[in-house]
Amino acid sequence: MTHTLILLRHGESDWNAKNLFTGWVDVPLTDKGRAEATHGGELLVENGILPDVVHTSLLRRAIMTSNLALDAADRHWIPVKRSWRLNERHYGALQGKNKAETLATYGEEQFMTWRRSFDTPPPPIEKGSEWSQDADPRYADLGDDAPLTECLKDVIERFLPYWHDEVVPDLQDGKTVLLAAHGNSLRAVVKHLDGISDDDIVGVNIPTGMPLVYELDDNFEPVTKGGRYLDPEAAAAAAAAVANQGKK
Amino acid sequence: MTHTLILLRHGESDWNAKNLFTGWVDVPLTDKGRAEATHGGELLVENGILPDVVHTSLLRRAIMTSNLALDAADRHWIPVKRSWRLNERHYGALQGKNKAETLATYGEEQFMTWRRSFDTPPPPIEKGSEWSQDADPRYADLGDDAPLTECLKDVIERFLPYWHDEVVPDLQDGKTVLLAAHGNSLRAVVKHLDGISDDDIVGVNIPTGMPLVYELDDNFEPVTKGGRYLDPEAAAAAAAAVANQGKK
Repeated sequence: MTHTLILLRHGESDWNAKNLFTGWVDVPLTDKGRAEATHGGELLVENGILPDVVHTSLLRRAIMTSNLALDAADRHWIPVKRSWRLNERHYGALQGKNKAETLATYGEEQFMTWRRSFDTPPPPIEKGSEWSQDADPRYADLGDDAPLTECLKDVIERFLPYWHDEVVPDLQDGKTVLLAAHGNSLRAVVKHLDGISDDDIVGVNIPTGMPLVYELDDNFEPVTKGGRYLDPEAAAAAAAAVANQGKK
Repeated sequence: MTHTLILLRHGESDWNAKNLFTGWVDVPLTDKGRAEATHGGELLVENGILPDVVHTSLLRRAIMTSNLALDAADRHWIPVKRSWRLNERHYGALQGKNKAETLATYGEEQFMTWRRSFDTPPPPIEKGSEWSQDADPRYADLGDDAPLTECLKDVIERFLPYWHDEVVPDLQDGKTVLLAAHGNSLRAVVKHLDGISDDDIVGVNIPTGMPLVYELDDNFEPVTKGGRYLDPEAAAAAAAAVANQGKK
C-alpha cells in the first residue's frame, strides 16, 4: 500500500504582485491567487485525489489557498492542522523591502546570496519594527525561539520535527494528506523526500497553485522521485516564471 | 475568572434565499451571507473579543462563515475543530422542498409541527434519494447512526456529548471559543445554557451573522442569561425577520 501526499504552494499574494519580500508578513492572496487556489482544488477532483486531512502554515495566503482549494474539491469539512513550522522562510530585515530595489542597492551577488544561499540568512529583523512579528499572538508560545531571520537550512530544521511528529502519523493512518504551504517550506519537504543536495535544492522552484502529488512507500520514500504535477505543462511554465522572479 | 463563548449562526445561504428546507444539504452562502460573516468578524474586532479556537459543523455554510469571520478578525490561524454534532437539524423528507409549497400542501398545523415541534420529526428521508446524505464520505464513520430525520430534541441529544467532551475542555483551558453553527444546533446550546423549557426553545430565533457572546462562570453557567449580542438592535430586527420565515 502506498501513501498519498499532496503539496500545494499558495497562489499569488498581494506582495508577490508588488515584488516585495514577504516572509512572515501576513499578506492576503490577490484575485489571481484566489483563482489559482480554486483551480488547484478542481485539479484534485479531476484526478480523483481527495485529501482526508489538511496541514497549513499560520499564514493567511496558505490558509486561504487551502480553504478555496478544499471548497472547490468538496473537502472543506476535513480536519485541519496548522503550524508555524510550515511557514515561509522568515526573511529577516528584508521583509517589506522591494526585490528590485534590494537588487539595485546591494548588487546581484549579495542579492542572490540572500535569496538562494542554503545557509546564509539575511540580517535579522529589528524587534518592534514595522514588519516584525514579535507582538503577533500566534507566535507568543514560541517566546525567544521565534526566528528573526532564516536561511533555507533553518527552515528545514524546524520543518522536519513536524514532518515526523504530525504528517507521517496521518499518512500511516492511511490518510491522503494535503500540505498547503510556501516556496521554502515546500522546498524542505521536497529536499527530504527526493534526497536533493544542499547545493541543488536552492535551484528547485515549485510553482504556485499546482498540486504536486507524491506516492510514498512504507518507508515514506517516494515511489517516483519528484512526484507528479496534476497539470505538468502549466507547472513547467510556471516554475520557469518563478525562477525569473526578482529580475524585473 | 469567567469563560467566553461566542455563538455565530451562518449567514444567508443559497437555499435560505430560495426558501427551501436545507437541513444537511450542503449549500453555499449567498453574497449577502458572505458579507454577514465578514461583518460578524468585524464586530468581534470592534469589541475586542477574539477567539482562540473555533468549532464548526461539517456543513459549508458554517465553515465558510467561520473562515470569513476569522479572516476579518485576523484570527484565520487559530485551531479548528469540526463535528457533525454541530450540524443543522436533519430535515428528513422535507430536505430540498420549498417551504411555501410545503405550507400550502400540508396546511399550517402540520407545517408548524414539523418546523417548531420539540419532539416530532418530519418523515425520514429515503436512502439514495436526491437530497439524502447516505453516500456522503464525511458521515461514513457514523454508519447506521447517521440520522434520516431529526426533531429539535434529537439535535440536543447529539449536541450535548460534544459540548461536554470538546467545548467545555477548551473553555476550561482559558480559551475564548467561537462556535459557528446553525439555527437549531445553536438552539441546543442556548437551551442548555439558559435552561429554557422544551416548549419555549422552539420560539427562540437566533439571527444570522451576529456574534452572541456568553460569559460563563466556573460551572459553565451564564453570568447573564441570554448572553449579549454585539449589535443588539440589528439582532432584534433580524430575529423578528427569522420568525416570519416560511410565511412568504
